[in-house]
Amino acid sequence: MMLEVALFGAGRIGKIHAGNLARRNDVKLKYVIDINAAAASELAARYGAGVGDVETAVRDPAIRAVVIASSTDTHAELFLRAAAAGKAIFCEKPVDLSLARARSCAQAVHEAGVPCLIGFQRRYDPTFAAVKARLDAGEIGEPEMLVITSRDPSAPPVGYIKSSGGIFKDMLIHDFDICRWILDDEAASVYAVGSCLTDPAIAAAGDADSAAVTIRTRKDRLCQINATRRAVYGYDQRFEVLGSKGMLQAHNHRPTEVVVATTAGVSQDKPEAFFLERYRFAYANEMAHFLDALVSGTPIRTNIEDGLKALELAEAATQSWREGRPVTFDDRS
Amino acid sequence: MMLEVALFGAGRIGKIHAGNLARRNDVKLKYVIDINAAAASELAARYGAGVGDVETAVRDPAIRAVVIASSTDTHAELFLRAAAAGKAIFCEKPVDLSLARARSCAQAVHEAGVPCLIGFQRRYDPTFAAVKARLDAGEIGEPEMLVITSRDPSAPPVGYIKSSGGIFKDMLIHDFDICRWILDDEAASVYAVGSCLTDPAIAAAGDADSAAVTIRTRKDRLCQINATRRAVYGYDQRFEVLGSKGMLQAHNHRPTEVVVATTAGVSQDKPEAFFLERYRFAYANEMAHFLDALVSGTPIRTNIEDGLKALELAEAATQSWREGRPVTFDDRS
Amino acid sequence: MMLEVALFGAGRIGKIHAGNLARRNDVKLKYVIDINAAAASELAARYGAGVGDVETAVRDPAIRAVVIASSTDTHAELFLRAAAAGKAIFCEKPVDLSLARARSCAQAVHEAGVPCLIGFQRRYDPTFAAVKARLDAGEIGEPEMLVITSRDPSAPPVGYIKSSGGIFKDMLIHDFDICRWILDDEAASVYAVGSCLTDPAIAAAGDADSAAVTIRTRKDRLCQINATRRAVYGYDQRFEVLGSKGMLQAHNHRPTEVVVATTAGVSQDKPEAFFLERYRFAYANEMAHFLDALVSGTPIRTNIEDGLKALELAEAATQSWREGRPVTFDDRS
Amino acid sequence: MMLEVALFGAGRIGKIHAGNLARRNDVKLKYVIDINAAAASELAARYGAGVGDVETAVRDPAIRAVVIASSTDTHAELFLRAAAAGKAIFCEKPVDLSLARARSCAQAVHEAGVPCLIGFQRRYDPTFAAVKARLDAGEIGEPEMLVITSRDPSAPPVGYIKSSGGIFKDMLIHDFDICRWILDDEAASVYAVGSCLTDPAIAAAGDADSAAVTIRTRKDRLCQINATRRAVYGYDQRFEVLGSKGMLQAHNHRPTEVVVATTAGVSQDKPEAFFLERYRFAYANEMAHFLDALVSGTPIRTNIEDGLKALELAEAATQSWREGRPVTFDDRS
Repeated sequence: MMLEVALFGAGRIGKIHAGNLARRNDVKLKYVIDINAAAASELAARYGAGVGDVETAVRDPAIRAVVIASSTDTHAELFLRAAAAGKAIFCEKPVDLSLARARSCAQAVHEAGVPCLIGFQRRYDPTFAAVKARLDAGEIGEPEMLVITSRDPSAPPVGYIKSSGGIFKDMLIHDFDICRWILDDEAASVYAVGSCLTDPAIAAAGDADSAAVTIRTRKDRLCQINATRRAVYGYDQRFEVLGSKGMLQAHNHRPTEVVVATTAGVSQDKPEAFFLERYRFAYANEMAHFLDALVSGTPIRTNIEDGLKALELAEAATQSWREGRPVTFDDRS
Repeated sequence: MMLEVALFGAGRIGKIHAGNLARRNDVKLKYVIDINAAAASELAARYGAGVGDVETAVRDPAIRAVVIASSTDTHAELFLRAAAAGKAIFCEKPVDLSLARARSCAQAVHEAGVPCLIGFQRRYDPTFAAVKARLDAGEIGEPEMLVITSRDPSAPPVGYIKSSGGIFKDMLIHDFDICRWILDDEAASVYAVGSCLTDPAIAAAGDADSAAVTIRTRKDRLCQINATRRAVYGYDQRFEVLGSKGMLQAHNHRPTEVVVATTAGVSQDKPEAFFLERYRFAYANEMAHFLDALVSGTPIRTNIEDGLKALELAEAATQSWREGRPVTFDDRS
Repeated sequence: MMLEVALFGAGRIGKIHAGNLARRNDVKLKYVIDINAAAASELAARYGAGVGDVETAVRDPAIRAVVIASSTDTHAELFLRAAAAGKAIFCEKPVDLSLARARSCAQAVHEAGVPCLIGFQRRYDPTFAAVKARLDAGEIGEPEMLVITSRDPSAPPVGYIKSSGGIFKDMLIHDFDICRWILDDEAASVYAVGSCLTDPAIAAAGDADSAAVTIRTRKDRLCQINATRRAVYGYDQRFEVLGSKGMLQAHNHRPTEVVVATTAGVSQDKPEAFFLERYRFAYANEMAHFLDALVSGTPIRTNIEDGLKALELAEAATQSWREGRPVTFDDRS
Repeated sequence: MMLEVALFGAGRIGKIHAGNLARRNDVKLKYVIDINAAAASELAARYGAGVGDVETAVRDPAIRAVVIASSTDTHAELFLRAAAAGKAIFCEKPVDLSLARARSCAQAVHEAGVPCLIGFQRRYDPTFAAVKARLDAGEIGEPEMLVITSRDPSAPPVGYIKSSGGIFKDMLIHDFDICRWILDDEAASVYAVGSCLTDPAIAAAGDADSAAVTIRTRKDRLCQINATRRAVYGYDQRFEVLGSKGMLQAHNHRPTEVVVATTAGVSQDKPEAFFLERYRFAYANEMAHFLDALVSGTPIRTNIEDGLKALELAEAATQSWREGRPVTFDDRS
């Protein structure tokens, strides 16, 4: 029996998910929905799907799961409708820029009892996942400090930045998730500073392009994140975790393993260009995990709680930056 | 219009090719043929193909191309029948262990005028191909010396070795192709030594498990190959080319980019385990090149001449080893 | 004419300086002074010096320079007496744990007009100095962010920690100097968190063993420092500076360039064991710079101002940690 | 009691040895002898030695050891006179270009019973020595194959090449020593090819600038050496030994551990520029070993036998290259 899926969003990330759905013999991509009709048609045609609309997809009882890869401002509505219809949900991060709306989504998922995966694809990256597995296996003892380097090759258009929720919600949200996941602990306090060093238009839009964050966890573990919108040498995605018995580092992936030695030096490839290249295996593994969990009824690794927690950290970091002081979390959650 | 293909061989390499054929929307795998009926059925079922026999496949006018991935002793016959039937041919290396039969195959291809790709997949490896492209672009000037490291993780069963044609035809044939391809030159002489250092049963079978080859080309360029059947740390596939303006190195690929630092040292992953892992992108690129060439009518990069030349080198190396002297090539070809 | 020098302190760092003084044909180590008479005698004998006392050394008009490598609590007094006597001063960091006393020393140096070098030897490390030179040459454009990793292999005895001034004055003072030097900018604010994760006795002594510091400079550049008293894999001394046109990284030095590949992985040496090994070239270069400056009358690169500024940062970081809030600097200096 | 030494040769290598002698408190450099009187004077003055002549130095009963660092054509005579006078001998490689004369020197050493070190300084390199120690400790089991990369940054003047004895005696003699030392085995056969690819004047002088050598040892181990007079990216000095349980690699040393990432790639330093830089620690360790052996009466690691064996290999390689065939050694020695 085929697992039938509807895909919302036919943009660059929607295409990735469509391709990963198509790798499965037990999955059928039934609908592609996008306000850009041409994009929807083209993607649908490529994988033998139909072009649909939200209403049809959500009402179709054959649809078991939806993949929400449309623009962030549409997530919450699609999410709530899918949950109400009892569909399993694969939703790109962030659930919503508003913590309140994100909490409504979480509430809906809990009430509907539907499986839900939030798209923190980095956890499914082969290198990142190997670090986590080896850490869990005790290879470096207890984790103590985490240093995350998170650098985009270049900033998105300022128009995008204006509606992005800011660098902490738009970009560092992934790093907040890495922090929680790797340290297996919740933030007790967060301190963030931001600067605008690459483009004054970003400052004019009220945002920063460079950020430095410090998180102290409940177990007194320390995490530092350094992030920039512009690293001219490529998409720099590294972290290292220091433990009581050693250190595990996740280094960048490179397109090739060529080294060239000339009078100028000894040089290797820059990191993979951007997230579509670097995380292509992560996206594939993530979708496979989602589908396997649906098929087998096993729990999903990056769920709505993870989505909420990362968003709370992003909101607190934004507040810390704006107010120039550390923000402390209660011990409730 | 779909390009219909028949696949001979449902073993581990046949499975790889079937998967790569299945990635194409413009290709239909019509028949899987294997003397192991269960293997043929299973692979055929997986990709919606039928189980066929040689006669049917070769006679079917809809079949445009055949992929020969069966055991080496069956290559020549399948090759000749496919050529006679006007099919395009994708054939795993070596064409045949006998140079005479390989030449008959070449003759048949020439007479039939069919496209033919010999499976030197390493040329399609991202790292190896990047070295070649950068060399061709003049990045290190004129090539002068080539050092190839070619090490399997462990030896195949002695039963296999006995019918393998020996280490030079079975294993180093790939390296001979690398030598010709990278140096863009033909061998003038070859000198080979072999030793049996890992397993006396290999010596008893009349073969070596360790080999060191030196090739001098017509342009006086020098190539050294070191090879072993057993490198316990993994599949070690490297080469470096020294040029008048620098050096290009092709290093191993690793499963992940994790580095661990402990009291024991600072350690990273071993190389990819074996050829199916290391060359998975190479196999995909190779098949894509074959199919693209069929669709567009453009020339094939690793053709029957390459198959013959590498085999001639393997035969000369075997002779050199047995006779304890360098073997010289004429300047005819 | 020989440049005559008195050395205060015959401990491990005093021995290093004695060895570096002995390399010069134009320098004579005249006195070694230490409250441990045996240590003073042994070191003096090794380099043909005499054993002296403070009074004799400071009064000897032939003595042109003193090297203060005794325990921190003796620095200020020796410093003031040497300045008063018109001697050039090479003083290990910190000048003093008290900012007030350190300022008195600075005042004394200014009044006496004597050359003074504060022992921030890291600036003289070949790798660190090369990063600085290449940054200054514009190789990566304008600096934007700096990430410093500063990890000792193991904590000193708790007895030492108690009188050390705390992790920020004792250990991170070097990193504060690196921050000022690399970014060529002064701190506008500093935020520090500390944890005790390796040994509860350190917490009981009122100190932290793990620290994370964020500095924002006047030019809005950002610096993060992560530090621990215990990295079991060795002395981890790295930093990286992100600029508008690239990134420069200073990696660890290793005892050898051996790589071993086994079934367990591919492993290289751990970093140099500790500061005496890692910074042996730095200490030699530092002393050579001091002596060259004396001989030639050129300015000294790491002077009393640098000593004060780093100490101010250490004091602010300590305050930030204790008060749980960022500490802001005035724009005066 | 001081160990008094005479140094023959005040050129670049003589200066290195003088500096290393001067590091010892128990050694006195008494004479510097060179046909270039100015060079001798300058070097002697620097280290408080006298300028001498051969006769005086050899006859002076206080002289315990001589260091022969003059031009190769003077080695044998100095060697024989020093041996006859009962002096310990430190002699730069090669002992002599003529195997017959080198054998006379060996004979003289044996008869005189004097300690003798031949200057294969690479064995004293920290990285190379660590590989050997770890190999001997069994870390990779039994050695099977050795691959040596031996590349100079640029060729010496053709005038030098003409009297150098050729690339095998002048340059690869070090690699022949590495082969014997690492594999702990003697050559059974050697095959060498040479090409002239960098400068036709070298061919006109009857020499090659590029060489590829294969050695099979008595225990059937295999060694390949690739060498060039010109690697534009620097002095490339690597080897790797494959064993039954793994591989040990000796990589190049670099001036600094800086990495720079720009739009052009991720680049690190070229190897150390040439032998004076790369092997500065090796030269120091070598001299310390010689002097320690004299003081303690313990055996010397690189002795006259090693000098002869490497020269025999160089002569056989030259013959192999000229005659186009492998040269076999008897099992006598």
